[in-house]
Amino acid sequence: MKVCRKESFNAAHRLHNPNLSEKENKQLFGVCNNPNYHGHNYTLICCVEGEINPITGYVMDLKILSELIENEVLNRFDHKNLNLDCAEFFNLNPTAENIAKVIYSILRKQINTKLTLEITLWETDRNYVIYNGKY
Amino acid sequence: MKVCRKESFNAAHRLHNPNLSEKENKQLFGVCNNPNYHGHNYTLICCVEGEINPITGYVMDLKILSELIENEVLNRFDHKNLNLDCAEFFNLNPTAENIAKVIYSILRKQINTKLTLEITLWETDRNYVIYNGKY
Amino acid sequence: MKVCRKESFNAAHRLHNPNLSEKENKQLFGVCNNPNYHGHNYTLICCVEGEINPITGYVMDLKILSELIENEVLNRFDHKNLNLDCAEFFNLNPTAENIAKVIYSILRKQINTKLTLEITLWETDRNYVIYNGKY
Amino acid sequence: MKVCRKESFNAAHRLHNPNLSEKENKQLFGVCNNPNYHGHNYTLICCVEGEINPITGYVMDLKILSELIENEVLNRFDHKNLNLDCAEFFNLNPTAENIAKVIYSILRKQINTKLTLEITLWETDRNYVIYNGKY
Amino acid sequence: MKVCRKESFNAAHRLHNPNLSEKENKQLFGVCNNPNYHGHNYTLICCVEGEINPITGYVMDLKILSELIENEVLNRFDHKNLNLDCAEFFNLNPTAENIAKVIYSILRKQINTKLTLEITLWETDRNYVIYNGKY
Amino acid sequence: MKVCRKESFNAAHRLHNPNLSEKENKQLFGVCNNPNYHGHNYTLICCVEGEINPITGYVMDLKILSELIENEVLNRFDHKNLNLDCAEFFNLNPTAENIAKVIYSILRKQINTKLTLEITLWETDRNYVIYNGKY
Repeated sequence: MKVCRKESFNAAHRLHNPNLSEKENKQLFGVCNNPNYHGHNYTLICCVEGEINPITGYVMDLKILSELIENEVLNRFDHKNLNLDCAEFFNLNPTAENIAKVIYSILRKQINTKLTLEITLWETDRNYVIYNGKY
Repeated sequence: MKVCRKESFNAAHRLHNPNLSEKENKQLFGVCNNPNYHGHNYTLICCVEGEINPITGYVMDLKILSELIENEVLNRFDHKNLNLDCAEFFNLNPTAENIAKVIYSILRKQINTKLTLEITLWETDRNYVIYNGKY
Repeated sequence: MKVCRKESFNAAHRLHNPNLSEKENKQLFGVCNNPNYHGHNYTLICCVEGEINPITGYVMDLKILSELIENEVLNRFDHKNLNLDCAEFFNLNPTAENIAKVIYSILRKQINTKLTLEITLWETDRNYVIYNGKY
Repeated sequence: MKVCRKESFNAAHRLHNPNLSEKENKQLFGVCNNPNYHGHNYTLICCVEGEINPITGYVMDLKILSELIENEVLNRFDHKNLNLDCAEFFNLNPTAENIAKVIYSILRKQINTKLTLEITLWETDRNYVIYNGKY
Repeated sequence: MKVCRKESFNAAHRLHNPNLSEKENKQLFGVCNNPNYHGHNYTLICCVEGEINPITGYVMDLKILSELIENEVLNRFDHKNLNLDCAEFFNLNPTAENIAKVIYSILRKQINTKLTLEITLWETDRNYVIYNGKY
Repeated sequence: MKVCRKESFNAAHRLHNPNLSEKENKQLFGVCNNPNYHGHNYTLICCVEGEINPITGYVMDLKILSELIENEVLNRFDHKNLNLDCAEFFNLNPTAENIAKVIYSILRKQINTKLTLEITLWETDRNYVIYNGKY
């Protein structure tokens, strides 16, 4: 049984690899490389999977999952500049893939190891990524 | 090949475990424990997976799946109080997890055993659960 | 300039007119007349219209509007049985129309009279009503 | 890590199996068998799964995936009659299942074999299918 | 008080003006002029505005409005080719504007003249039109 | 007859009034005042209203409206920092209200004066503004 909670946060970012030339960055990341940043409304879905607790009828209380996401993820990233304000991305390009991976490792530490975790992150209403710890 | 049909129903419910004290119920279920009930628009997605029938080009006619959901699920739960009107929940706490499990077992009996079945149930536009018979 | 905020609440209700016979109620309200109640996820959109404040660039800070909705509307109706828990509906049939009208009159008292107010209330993903104080 | 891109196209089609009688076609496909065709806004989601490239932070640049979908899928099927204009369906009934399978095989040839591919195709806002090369 | 009902239908169509040359039609309507037709999932929202009936708490029972739309609009246009199957468009180009106008005049005859009527028609998830009898 | 086109763009911004103290800015704009910026996926809906052209069946070809929005609005604001990259906001606080007003005045110059124009701008999935030239 998988239970899922949807939240959202708004952030600025810029895609950039400091090991590449300016020209290579432009070629790779196009308008996403704008040195003055752009931004997104990120939609985050966190799913945990495990057995139903027979006392509560819950796999995990989604109110607790929601508070965990608020404390651990939204408080860090909401209304922030990912490149400038968030240590997690000082040396990591904040692509949707890398943001999802970072969120996964933040939440993984806080969730019972009997439960599997899966992160879905929508960057726009046409682009999203899914990460479950594999890779 | 997985084919999916989305339907919806509206119901009242209350989360409550009669084996726990009133205080424990309040702590566990908060506002969802309101003795006078509250309610939701449940969005139900049923997916069946199997081979494409070469004559029809269908895994399963989604019109037939839709009618099956209407007859077996919506007719039981739509515009009902799950705790008071639905025998399935007289002794089972109607959490999204348990509702999904009940819907799975109702539909599982009606669908060709060569097809796998997966139930997704949205309780609000931020909370949902997925069940495929495991657990 | 109109500025709008979307919120949601979950409630149980029953459509019933105590001045009509049981049979007339069934005919008028069908499954919505179920004596044990059913429920909905209500989506509420509040729009206020007026001039932009040149200092803030806001017509009205949507964070303040959101807190007002939370304090005045969600705290009253979220996770409640409208017929049993909410004095506003002890003598008023909780149709979407009447709920919208009640929300309008609650919020109208709290919002600067220079601003017009409009309430949109979705009862299901197919039914909604709009009220702006007319009628 | 799975990365996904959502696109859409509009097409006419008709469900029909030329090896069956007119009566059998009507029984099987109902209104979808209308000889003058009907149509849909198809929503297509393409997901590719693989490792993150440490230089780009991408599994696959979603802009490139989007262009690939536009060149290979939308240019073939958008604003077309699938039965009359598209050779892929001259001898294949254009059910959602078969359209998804055709799109999978078109894109599979263009995407690095290290990446897995999954196609989700919504035919209406209530019906969709998912195909990943199995079956 | 405005009350609204959302429905949908699927149809094929082709934009074409028989008084213009083939070349002019191509220029004006582009891919929408495809002689073999293409199609859409049309989303239709019908809003009626008037006073709340104090006995029912309804402006108009949305179940009755839904049945009216089904009988008068969906039965005519759903799973049809608008140009070939629907007399309303034998001499009228089935643009979203004209379809909305036709639906308005069909429903206007069936709805109490004390109620105003407004038709919103989404042709794709990016294009829609609104008509209320003006023009 | 009103015809509408939905587009979207992604941008970074910061709410700030240089005539106010740092403390006043924090109080007024809270997290939106972050000096390093944050960002949004803005959803833009442009509606034009007028008579149907009897030759085309269009009020205005939505493809032309879409291209106009792309050339005049998206090319200016998409993947930009509104405060740093866009002259329109060098001396104007980029609230949703002011962005809508700027977009209105840009597009108003390009659209036939016989047609009225209305701009809807969603900043998040819960906040939006509507502007039609009044105020």
